[in-house]
Amino acid sequence: MTVFNTGFPSIRQIQNFIKNKTPVEIGLITNQSEKGIILWQDQNCFCLQNNNKEKILIWTQSLAYVKSK
Amino acid sequence: MTVFNTGFPSIRQIQNFIKNKTPVEIGLITNQSEKGIILWQDQNCFCLQNNNKEKILIWTQSLAYVKSK
Amino acid sequence: MTVFNTGFPSIRQIQNFIKNKTPVEIGLITNQSEKGIILWQDQNCFCLQNNNKEKILIWTQSLAYVKSK
Amino acid sequence: MTVFNTGFPSIRQIQNFIKNKTPVEIGLITNQSEKGIILWQDQNCFCLQNNNKEKILIWTQSLAYVKSK
Amino acid sequence: MTVFNTGFPSIRQIQNFIKNKTPVEIGLITNQSEKGIILWQDQNCFCLQNNNKEKILIWTQSLAYVKSK
Amino acid sequence: MTVFNTGFPSIRQIQNFIKNKTPVEIGLITNQSEKGIILWQDQNCFCLQNNNKEKILIWTQSLAYVKSK
Repeated sequence: MTVFNTGFPSIRQIQNFIKNKTPVEIGLITNQSEKGIILWQDQNCFCLQNNNKEKILIWTQSLAYVKSK
Repeated sequence: MTVFNTGFPSIRQIQNFIKNKTPVEIGLITNQSEKGIILWQDQNCFCLQNNNKEKILIWTQSLAYVKSK
Repeated sequence: MTVFNTGFPSIRQIQNFIKNKTPVEIGLITNQSEKGIILWQDQNCFCLQNNNKEKILIWTQSLAYVKSK
Repeated sequence: MTVFNTGFPSIRQIQNFIKNKTPVEIGLITNQSEKGIILWQDQNCFCLQNNNKEKILIWTQSLAYVKSK
Repeated sequence: MTVFNTGFPSIRQIQNFIKNKTPVEIGLITNQSEKGIILWQDQNCFCLQNNNKEKILIWTQSLAYVKSK
Repeated sequence: MTVFNTGFPSIRQIQNFIKNKTPVEIGLITNQSEKGIILWQDQNCFCLQNNNKEKILIWTQSLAYVKSK
């Protein structure tokens, strides 16, 4: 389970990606990946807006990696 | 484990999909996906009615993403 | 972890499948699926009787979906 | 996480397989399966003796199903 | 989550493998496996020395089985 | 869930890799692997700088192994 503590580097890093609209690539444990910008995060999900302007709720339980581009 | 707190954006977003009968695509960590509308959610499951009017209990532990269409 | 609270819709739905001997298809996160009727559930497992009358303990941690047929 | 409570049907069922040396097939979330008899269980593992008399510690976190043969 | 209680048979069995430098095969939920001897275990990891004398930290969350050879 | 206790051998080992800029290979439960040096770790993630100088947040929930090279 992702620990959602805003003092953690990982959570702050994602908050920076959100604030700066940093393009990211999100890799899932399914081996799928999706590119876009992260709109918000909470305890369960990231909300990603992909390059087709679709909003996708990504469950953090399925995250493998996040790479800034 | 999904945290089922109705104040969270992710849970509220799903509640909106339920209320508005928003067509969604649900992606699983199996790489399978299913389209339909979400009828209800609880701590363990989403109940999805697919386009064949079948009702499917989807365990939240197997969720990768939810995309509104 | 599945939350085993008999007041939850998901647990009640499974209890109804058990009581009514509803034929179900159970999908696992391995992409395997098995058909039959559920005999009982507890915190860890479903006991499924498949169409060959074999009894199979299915760990809820491996559940992706349950579909009534 | 498997809940190891000897009052649960799932745990009792496995205890019966152990006591009766019931031949079982254990399916893993890797899609692998192994046949043999279960020698003991604890919170983390089943100890399976396969048909080559090898003893294998199987982590319960990787269990998909147990089928008696 | 692996329960790290030195009174459990599974933890004691691994401690014996460590003490006796027992050659083992470790299977992961990725379907990969690695052979060697276990140098130590803690709550998160096994440290395996493989046959090329490389030390590998294996996360217990990815364990499927351990087989002594 | 990874237990983030700096007294544990696994956490100390990673801290040493960080301090010494030890080249590592990180294997994921997706069967992907990535090489580089670990810049920091917290409860949720490792931050890996790969050989293209990209920084990648790797969720510890997706870790299978870490091998020093």
